[in-house]
Amino acid sequence: MTKSELRSVCLSKLKIAADSVCWDVGSGTGSVAVEMALQAVKGRVYAVEKKPEAALLTEENARRLGASNLKTVCGSAPEALEELPAPDRVFIGGSSGNIGEIVSLILRKNPSARIVATAVTLETAAGLTALMKELPPENSEAALISVSKSRKTGPYNMMTAQNPVWVFTLQGKGAAR
Amino acid sequence: MTKSELRSVCLSKLKIAADSVCWDVGSGTGSVAVEMALQAVKGRVYAVEKKPEAALLTEENARRLGASNLKTVCGSAPEALEELPAPDRVFIGGSSGNIGEIVSLILRKNPSARIVATAVTLETAAGLTALMKELPPENSEAALISVSKSRKTGPYNMMTAQNPVWVFTLQGKGAAR
Amino acid sequence: MTKSELRSVCLSKLKIAADSVCWDVGSGTGSVAVEMALQAVKGRVYAVEKKPEAALLTEENARRLGASNLKTVCGSAPEALEELPAPDRVFIGGSSGNIGEIVSLILRKNPSARIVATAVTLETAAGLTALMKELPPENSEAALISVSKSRKTGPYNMMTAQNPVWVFTLQGKGAAR
Amino acid sequence: MTKSELRSVCLSKLKIAADSVCWDVGSGTGSVAVEMALQAVKGRVYAVEKKPEAALLTEENARRLGASNLKTVCGSAPEALEELPAPDRVFIGGSSGNIGEIVSLILRKNPSARIVATAVTLETAAGLTALMKELPPENSEAALISVSKSRKTGPYNMMTAQNPVWVFTLQGKGAAR
Repeated sequence: MTKSELRSVCLSKLKIAADSVCWDVGSGTGSVAVEMALQAVKGRVYAVEKKPEAALLTEENARRLGASNLKTVCGSAPEALEELPAPDRVFIGGSSGNIGEIVSLILRKNPSARIVATAVTLETAAGLTALMKELPPENSEAALISVSKSRKTGPYNMMTAQNPVWVFTLQGKGAAR
Repeated sequence: MTKSELRSVCLSKLKIAADSVCWDVGSGTGSVAVEMALQAVKGRVYAVEKKPEAALLTEENARRLGASNLKTVCGSAPEALEELPAPDRVFIGGSSGNIGEIVSLILRKNPSARIVATAVTLETAAGLTALMKELPPENSEAALISVSKSRKTGPYNMMTAQNPVWVFTLQGKGAAR
Repeated sequence: MTKSELRSVCLSKLKIAADSVCWDVGSGTGSVAVEMALQAVKGRVYAVEKKPEAALLTEENARRLGASNLKTVCGSAPEALEELPAPDRVFIGGSSGNIGEIVSLILRKNPSARIVATAVTLETAAGLTALMKELPPENSEAALISVSKSRKTGPYNMMTAQNPVWVFTLQGKGAAR
Repeated sequence: MTKSELRSVCLSKLKIAADSVCWDVGSGTGSVAVEMALQAVKGRVYAVEKKPEAALLTEENARRLGASNLKTVCGSAPEALEELPAPDRVFIGGSSGNIGEIVSLILRKNPSARIVATAVTLETAAGLTALMKELPPENSEAALISVSKSRKTGPYNMMTAQNPVWVFTLQGKGAAR
């Protein structure tokens, strides 16, 4: 499950429009995908996830929250992405090791797609850095986010760190509409 | 202007419902208040700000985005808050030095209000720590958020730090509905 | 055991001179105290620790590294500090809840002592903030330090966060010699 | 000038022995190099810096602090390093863009050298990640360090962030003696 603060930040960076076609690549139980669907009310959302039970949970969540514009796709990226309609907005939460191929496929489908991808390893961050450098620099950026939270321990509130996360925004040609 | 990532995080922590009565205390040009109004579609939002020109900008932004449920209040906290309807959700972005009085007033008006307050100074963080300790511990917490962003400098992307921000969530009696 | 990076930072902030009289309050197994002793070659170091087995380990470490100017004191702060010679430099690593009394005692013994104290809870940080505000502002400061380290997980290096630590430098009257 | 906390951390990670041969590559005004020289009392330190005035300042600092085992080398890396004796410990503070060549040269001179290198850009961090992956994983690591400091602004202490710094420790064959 994507942490709630991080999810808020990533959704904010995606700048989803009412008619956006969205992909959530490695969607897990769908917490980002469902939120995408609630924002892209006249658009469509494809939640791509290889674990069938997670895809099932996503569908249940979507139904419960009335997100009828969400479709789950059970499969692995990048293969499972080939058949999907070209996206305007893509969230890549899972550091699957195929980040380069996935981003290439997205930009081939739509050269002006907006991609938000998270990284928690040095290797994925390095890969996303290389991808970012191939894009026009104006609208792409990397953010490094560190969050600590208080945890009650006896009468004290100890600050407890979560692992840092890089959030890369990769904007293809042009800017987000 | 509240930074966009931080704004997303604070709004997410407020858990605004469709019918929430919201206050934005020290609302500046209204970026949080307008977003509150778009979420509390059947509720009301009061944006309290002492600078008239900022309150005016808030009204313009609200009009432009169709947030007809937003009302600006030009005045200083806590005085300007006395006359307002009891709030369900409150955002306190400005570290005005009156944080203790403001929180007391809010919880007197509605003992189960949910308050999200940010701090950028040691003193405000210490004050909010003391306030948090007087509330039931289950649903309150402090988060410390640090964000760095890439900045193009020649061929390199230098990571540039923003100052850390504490985000305190103070939940009165009960939990957010 | 104090983490090595943090220890380096605290020792650097203490600005120990060759003839400094040093206290390590809550010295644990003595990693800071022994380093103090190696720097204050013509001074003396008092390592105050309530657990006898930790004090014993400190003595062994001191002997092994030739730090003959280190003396362990088995007892609790602030009581165990009363009898000790006035200090020039004090490290307070343990957030014992008596931070206010300990700092008062130190500054009574030597009004120009230099104290470096760490905090990992909101409460200790708030207490140290209050103490810092009573001192001349020129030479005191708070630093908030966050460290993440790579950890091999399969072929990847995942960045793993350590909890953030506040390091307060409290300088009594005057500056460190 | 290298920030004092960061300098302490890097020196601690270098684990300099009394007889170490040390290089400081991009030594600036020599704050790391002089400290190296005070630790490697029976060893030698080479401070490599392209700006003559900075090298001059380094020499003055070394003289003033009695570090007679420090030699400045005015030139650019990696060229200026070719003629130097093989190092045991190397600090690379400057992200000169030649990080790959510099590390290769060092490990060719001494396959078991210990290198501590800092990075403030995504590109240098990516380059150091690639270099780290070619070394035995046991004794190498990356640390990401973020420091904020209090700054007096009126009656408040605002926490002010310094840019985050990666500190890579690259240990060639074997471990630091």
